[in-house]
Amino acid sequence: MSLDQNCVNTIRCLAADVVQNAESGHPGAPMGLAPLGHILWTRIMNFNPADTSWPNRDRYIQSNGHSSVLLYILLHLSGSGCSMDDLQHYRQLLCRTPGHPEAGLLPGVEGLPRVNPHGRYFLAFPPSHDGPLGQGVGNSVGMAIAQAHLAARFNVEHFPVFDHYIYAVCSDGDMMEGISHEAASVAGHLRLNRLVWIYDNNGHTIDGPTSLTYSDDIVARFQSYGWHTQIVEDGDRDLSAIQRALENVRLVPNRPHFISLRTTIGYGSSKAGSEKTHGTPLGEEDLAETKRRLGMDPSHRFVVPNAVREVYASILEKGRTKQAAWQAMLSQYSAQFPDKFRELERLMHNELPPDWEAALPSENPEEKPQGTRKMSGIVLEALFPALSGLIGGSADLAESTGIKRNGSFQNNPVNRLIHFGVREHVMMAICNGISSYRVGLIPFASTFLIFAGYCLPSVRLAALSSLRVLFIFSHDSVGLGGDGPTHQPIEMLETLRSIPKMVVIRPCSLNETVGAYRWALMRPNQPTSFIFSRQNVKYVSETSRDISRGAYILRDTGGNPDIILVGTGSEVPLCVDAARSLEPGLHTRVISAPALNLFDKQPQEYKRSLFPLGVPVLSVEASCCHGWASYSHAHVGVDSFGLSAPGEEVLKFLGFTVDNVVAKAHRLHQWYQTHPVPTLFDEPFGEMRATENIPATTGTCTSVTNPEPAAPMGAGVS
Amino acid sequence: MSLDQNCVNTIRCLAADVVQNAESGHPGAPMGLAPLGHILWTRIMNFNPADTSWPNRDRYIQSNGHSSVLLYILLHLSGSGCSMDDLQHYRQLLCRTPGHPEAGLLPGVEGLPRVNPHGRYFLAFPPSHDGPLGQGVGNSVGMAIAQAHLAARFNVEHFPVFDHYIYAVCSDGDMMEGISHEAASVAGHLRLNRLVWIYDNNGHTIDGPTSLTYSDDIVARFQSYGWHTQIVEDGDRDLSAIQRALENVRLVPNRPHFISLRTTIGYGSSKAGSEKTHGTPLGEEDLAETKRRLGMDPSHRFVVPNAVREVYASILEKGRTKQAAWQAMLSQYSAQFPDKFRELERLMHNELPPDWEAALPSENPEEKPQGTRKMSGIVLEALFPALSGLIGGSADLAESTGIKRNGSFQNNPVNRLIHFGVREHVMMAICNGISSYRVGLIPFASTFLIFAGYCLPSVRLAALSSLRVLFIFSHDSVGLGGDGPTHQPIEMLETLRSIPKMVVIRPCSLNETVGAYRWALMRPNQPTSFIFSRQNVKYVSETSRDISRGAYILRDTGGNPDIILVGTGSEVPLCVDAARSLEPGLHTRVISAPALNLFDKQPQEYKRSLFPLGVPVLSVEASCCHGWASYSHAHVGVDSFGLSAPGEEVLKFLGFTVDNVVAKAHRLHQWYQTHPVPTLFDEPFGEMRATENIPATTGTCTSVTNPEPAAPMGAGVS
Repeated sequence: MSLDQNCVNTIRCLAADVVQNAESGHPGAPMGLAPLGHILWTRIMNFNPADTSWPNRDRYIQSNGHSSVLLYILLHLSGSGCSMDDLQHYRQLLCRTPGHPEAGLLPGVEGLPRVNPHGRYFLAFPPSHDGPLGQGVGNSVGMAIAQAHLAARFNVEHFPVFDHYIYAVCSDGDMMEGISHEAASVAGHLRLNRLVWIYDNNGHTIDGPTSLTYSDDIVARFQSYGWHTQIVEDGDRDLSAIQRALENVRLVPNRPHFISLRTTIGYGSSKAGSEKTHGTPLGEEDLAETKRRLGMDPSHRFVVPNAVREVYASILEKGRTKQAAWQAMLSQYSAQFPDKFRELERLMHNELPPDWEAALPSENPEEKPQGTRKMSGIVLEALFPALSGLIGGSADLAESTGIKRNGSFQNNPVNRLIHFGVREHVMMAICNGISSYRVGLIPFASTFLIFAGYCLPSVRLAALSSLRVLFIFSHDSVGLGGDGPTHQPIEMLETLRSIPKMVVIRPCSLNETVGAYRWALMRPNQPTSFIFSRQNVKYVSETSRDISRGAYILRDTGGNPDIILVGTGSEVPLCVDAARSLEPGLHTRVISAPALNLFDKQPQEYKRSLFPLGVPVLSVEASCCHGWASYSHAHVGVDSFGLSAPGEEVLKFLGFTVDNVVAKAHRLHQWYQTHPVPTLFDEPFGEMRATENIPATTGTCTSVTNPEPAAPMGAGVS
Repeated sequence: MSLDQNCVNTIRCLAADVVQNAESGHPGAPMGLAPLGHILWTRIMNFNPADTSWPNRDRYIQSNGHSSVLLYILLHLSGSGCSMDDLQHYRQLLCRTPGHPEAGLLPGVEGLPRVNPHGRYFLAFPPSHDGPLGQGVGNSVGMAIAQAHLAARFNVEHFPVFDHYIYAVCSDGDMMEGISHEAASVAGHLRLNRLVWIYDNNGHTIDGPTSLTYSDDIVARFQSYGWHTQIVEDGDRDLSAIQRALENVRLVPNRPHFISLRTTIGYGSSKAGSEKTHGTPLGEEDLAETKRRLGMDPSHRFVVPNAVREVYASILEKGRTKQAAWQAMLSQYSAQFPDKFRELERLMHNELPPDWEAALPSENPEEKPQGTRKMSGIVLEALFPALSGLIGGSADLAESTGIKRNGSFQNNPVNRLIHFGVREHVMMAICNGISSYRVGLIPFASTFLIFAGYCLPSVRLAALSSLRVLFIFSHDSVGLGGDGPTHQPIEMLETLRSIPKMVVIRPCSLNETVGAYRWALMRPNQPTSFIFSRQNVKYVSETSRDISRGAYILRDTGGNPDIILVGTGSEVPLCVDAARSLEPGLHTRVISAPALNLFDKQPQEYKRSLFPLGVPVLSVEASCCHGWASYSHAHVGVDSFGLSAPGEEVLKFLGFTVDNVVAKAHRLHQWYQTHPVPTLFDEPFGEMRATENIPATTGTCTSVTNPEPAAPMGAGVS
C-alpha cells in the first residue's frame, strides 16, 4: 500500500489500540478522521512540533472532543511530546491523555501552561478544553478574531507576522448545538477568512444514524451565513480530494471556510458505519479483524512502522524551517518598526504595560448615586487606551452594560470593540478562544446576569481551562425592575460562586470596582465574573480598593460588636444605613464582602478578626439565600422569583429596606441573648485544610464555604 | 382612513400610550407589529376570547417577550379579560401586565392557572413565560409537537379534533440566539406543518441596525431547514400582503412556515426606524406628534374608537361560533368513538388514570448494584404504557439515560418517544411547550447533568411558569469516570437547587426512584429535576418509597446518636458502610436526603427529629460543598474539577471511601467533645417562617436552607 495509506492505517489501528487498551473511549471518529488528520498535519498545517508556542503556528481544534485520541496520536507521531506511554495511559488516573482534551496537559493540546487540578505541571500552549459539543468551534471563532486583530495591528507589507489558519474539526453534535449557529453567524458576518471548519459528516450520532434527528441541508445553511463551502465525497479513501479542498481554502479570501467531509465512522472495523463504534472499544476480535483488513499485524499493539515515523519526522524539519524563517523576518521587523515590535513583544510575553495602573480612576468623595454598572463602564473606558490588549464587547447591550461605542472590530479589525449580537453563549466561547490565543489579549464580555444561564458552559470552561477572561454581568438583581422575573436573577450569583476556580466579585463602589478590575487583570490564568447593578447605588465612603481578601471591615463602632451586618454590592449601603439606626443601642460592625470566593481562602485568623466568636451575623444580598449559611446566622435574601415593577418598589416589597434589616437585626440579637451563637468557620477544619499539601500554584479558588476539612474530605484537590 | 387602518393606528397609539404612562417599556416593536397583530387576530386566528381554554384554539406566542404590550392590547381589544386598568398598570407592582408576559397572570397569556408568586390568583390558559429571547420559539415547537401527536391519536376522518395552528412572533434576537437554530432544525426535521413563525424583520437591535452584528440570509437559512418561507416586503402598510402570506400557510402541507415581515420599528414616531424606540417611552412631544401623524387626537390617551371596538367585538362572535361547532362535533365524536373520547376527556381534564400507580415497579431484596439511571429507566419503562400522557425522550443519549428505543415520534406522531438530537436547550424548551399545551401531556427529557448548563434558561422558565416537566439528569458526578472534568458536574446540583420552585431529587435506590416519579407525576404545576448516577450503586435495603419530606432516617443504632451521617443518591451506601464501621464505638444515624428542597419546607419538629440539638452532622455528596452548610457541620464533597479515570478510581482519589468518611466522622466527633455543636435550623426562624401567611397553593419550593426568617427577610414571597 502507498506510504500515505500506510500512515492512515497506522493512525486507524493506533486509535483502536488506544481505546481497547483503556477499555473505554471513542474509537469510531478517530478511525474515520485518520485520512483528514494525516493530510492536514503532514501537508497543510504550518507548525513546529518542537516549539508549540510559536505565535504564528496554525491552530488545530478538536471540537468533537471525544475524538481526542486522534489529536493525541497526531501529537505523538509529529513528536510534540505525547509519548507512547501517554497513549497507553489514555483515560487513566492523572494521565496526560484524558477522555476529552484538557488545556495544558500536553504540548499541542491548545491549553495554557497551568498546573492541572491535581498538582502535576505541564507546559503547553494556548488552550482551551474541548469536549462539551460546540465549545471548540466557538473557541475557533475567537482565535480567528485574535488572528485578524493582530494581523491588522502588526502586519506590514512583506511582513506577514500573523498569517496562519485556524482549523477546527467538528461533528454532527457541534452542528446541532445552538452555539454552532451563533459561531457561524458571527464568523460569516466578520468574514474571518483564516477560519476553516471541517465537518466530520459520518452520518451518525450516539443514538444512531443522523436521519433519526437531523435533516438540515448543512452546506446550504453555511452558505446562508456567507461561508465558502466545499464537499469532499469520499473522505475515507480520496486523500487528494481532501488535500485539494484544504488548498482551495487559500484561493478564497474574505470568507470563512466550511468543508463537509463524508467519512465512515469506525472505518476498517467490521462495525464500520455503525454508532456501535462511537463510544466503546471494538473488542479483541474485531480489533484483530480490523488490523488484518487494514494490512497491519493483528498480533501487535501500538505499532508505528518506521516508514511512517520518517514521514512524520519530516514535519519536524519543515516546522523548524518555517519558524526560523518567521523569526528572521521578525528581527528585520524589529529593526524597521521598533515601536510596533516593542508593543508586539510585550503582548507576546503577555505583559501589562508598566504604567497601566495610573489609568485607574479615583473616587471623588462627592460621588452621586449611580448604578455600579456605570462604575464598571468608567473603569473600562479608562483602561481601554492604557491596556492595548483589552478586547471585547457585549451581547447587544453595549449601552446598558456601560461599554461605550468606540470603533468597531467589524469596520476595521484593528479596533478592539466587538458587537457580538444577541449571542451570549458564543460570545463567552469567543472570549475563551481569544484568551487561549495567548498573545497578550485580554478579552471581556458583558451581558445581563440572568443571561449567564445562556452561556454557562463557556463560563465554566474558562475556569476549567484557567483562562483570563473578564465576564461582566450587569442588571444583577430584582432591582432591575420592570422587565420582571424573567429577567431578574435569583440563583445566578450562587451558580457562578459554585463553579470551581471561578472568582465572583460584586463591588459596591467605584473603589471596589477598581479593585476588582485590578485584581482580575493581574491574574493571567484566572477568569473573573464581575457583578454590577442596574439601579443607582448610594455612595458609601471609605470602601477599599483592595478586594484581594474578599471581605473587610467597612464600619465599626469599636468594642466587641453586638451584631455584624455583612453585605455585597448594592446592599452594602443598606447595611451601613441599618447600622446607623442600630447604633444608639448596639455596637455594630459592617463588613463589605465583594468576593466571597477569595474570603474562603483567607487564613482562619483573618476570618476570625472579621467575625469574632459569639457575635451574631446578619447578611444582606438581593439574591438567593443558598450558600450564605456558611457566612451568617440569618440572611435577608430572595428565595422566590421577583416581580415586574419599578426597581425600588420591588426591593421594598421584598424587604430590602432599612426598617426591615434593623428589625431582623434586633430579632437576631435578642434571640442570641438566650441561645448559644453557632460558630462559623470552625477552627479545626481551617487547620486541617492548612495542613493539606497542595501546591499553592494550583490557584484553585474553590467555593468551599462551610466549615469542613477540605482535602481529606474530598476537596483534597482544592 | 380605512377601518383596518383605524384599528392599526389605534393599536400603535395605545402601545405608545401604555409605555409612556408606565414611563418604561418597549414601544418600538409593538408599534411596528400592529398591522400583523390586527390581521392575525381579526382575520386569521381561530379562538374564543370568552373561553381561552378551548383545546383547539390557535396558539399565539410573543417570543419577543419585550413586545408584551402588543399582546396585552390585542387581549384587551378582543375582550379576553385584559382591562384598560391592566393596560394602565403595565409594569406596576402586582400588575397583570408585567414587562414580559408571565404565565397565568392574564387569560390569553399562555400560562397555567396558578397563584402568581405574590399570592394573587388569576385564571389563565396554557402557559409559559416568554421573555428571554428564543424561549418562545422553542415553546412553539413543543406546542406543535403536542398538536401533531394529539391529532394523530384522536383525529378521525370528518372529526378534526385538533387542527389548529401555532403562531409565534419573533425578532432578530430570537433569530440570533442559538436555540432558534435547534428549534428550527427540529421543526423542519419533524415537518411540523401547523407551526408558523413570523419574523419581525425591522432591522434593529438594541445596539442599532442589525448590520452591526448580522448578515445571515435568514430566508435561505430556513430553507436549509426544510421550511416553507415567504417574504412580506411592506409589513407597515400592505395589510393584504400580510393576510395573503398567512393564508398561503394553509396551502403548503408537511412543512413549518417562516414569514419574514419587513416592518419599521416605532412606526409613526418621529424616531421611527431607530433603535431609540426599542426600550424607552417616546416622550410626550413625540407621542403627540405620532398621534397627529397617525390621525389620532393627541389630546387624549388610551383611546379606542367605537368603530374599532365593533371590529373586535366581531371576533368574539366568530370565536363563540367556532368553538360551538367544535363542541357539537365532539359530542358526535363521543357517540361514535366512546373509547377514544373517554381517553381524550381524561387528558383534557389533565387526570392520571386511576390505576396508574399499580404500574410502579417494586424492589427485589436481592437487587444487584446498578446505576440509579438504570433504575430511572426501569420506572419510566413501566410507566410509559400506563400513562398515555407521558411523552419525551433524550438529547442523543437514549441508551445512557435509560430510555429504551420505542416507536419514534418522527416515524409516526402517534408515538411518544422523541429523538431530540444533540440539542439540550430546545429539548427543554420543547418540553415547556408541551406542558404548556395542557391537554394532559406530561413531558420528560433526559441528558447528562453537566448539560443542565446547556439548557438552564428553559429549566428555570419551567419553574417560573409552574410547568410539570420531568427533567432527567444522569451521569451526575465525577463517578462517571473517563470522560473527565469537562463532563463531570460539580456545581450543577447546587445550581438546580438554587432555582426558586425547582425540586431536585437524587434517589439512592429503586424505592426512592419510584417515590421521586410518584411525587413529580402527582404535581401538575411543578417541575422536577431527577438526578441519577452513571456508575453502579450498591443496594441499600429499607430505603423509602415516600420522599415527600425530603429526608428520613434510614438507619439508626438507637439512643441519642454520637454522630449523624447524611447522604444523597450514590453516596448513601457509602454512609451506611461508614456507619457500620463506626458503630462498635459510636451511636450512629444515617439519613437519606433525596430532596433537600422538600426537606426545607418541613416543620421545625420534623427537622429536629432527624437532627437533634448537639449532635454533629457529617454530610457526604459527590458534588460541590456550597449549600451544605445549612444541613451539616462538615461535608465530604468536591470543590475542584474532577479528572479523567475509571469512575471508582476518581471517587477514591477524591476521598469517597469508607476509610475517609470514617476518619472524618471521628475527627468531627472528637472536636465536638470539647466544643459547642453549632445549632442547625435555629428555631426562631422556623417559627417566624411558620407565621408567614402565604397560601400553600403557591407550591413554592424555595431553596431557603439557612436559618433565617423567611418572609420578613425578603423571602416573604416564597
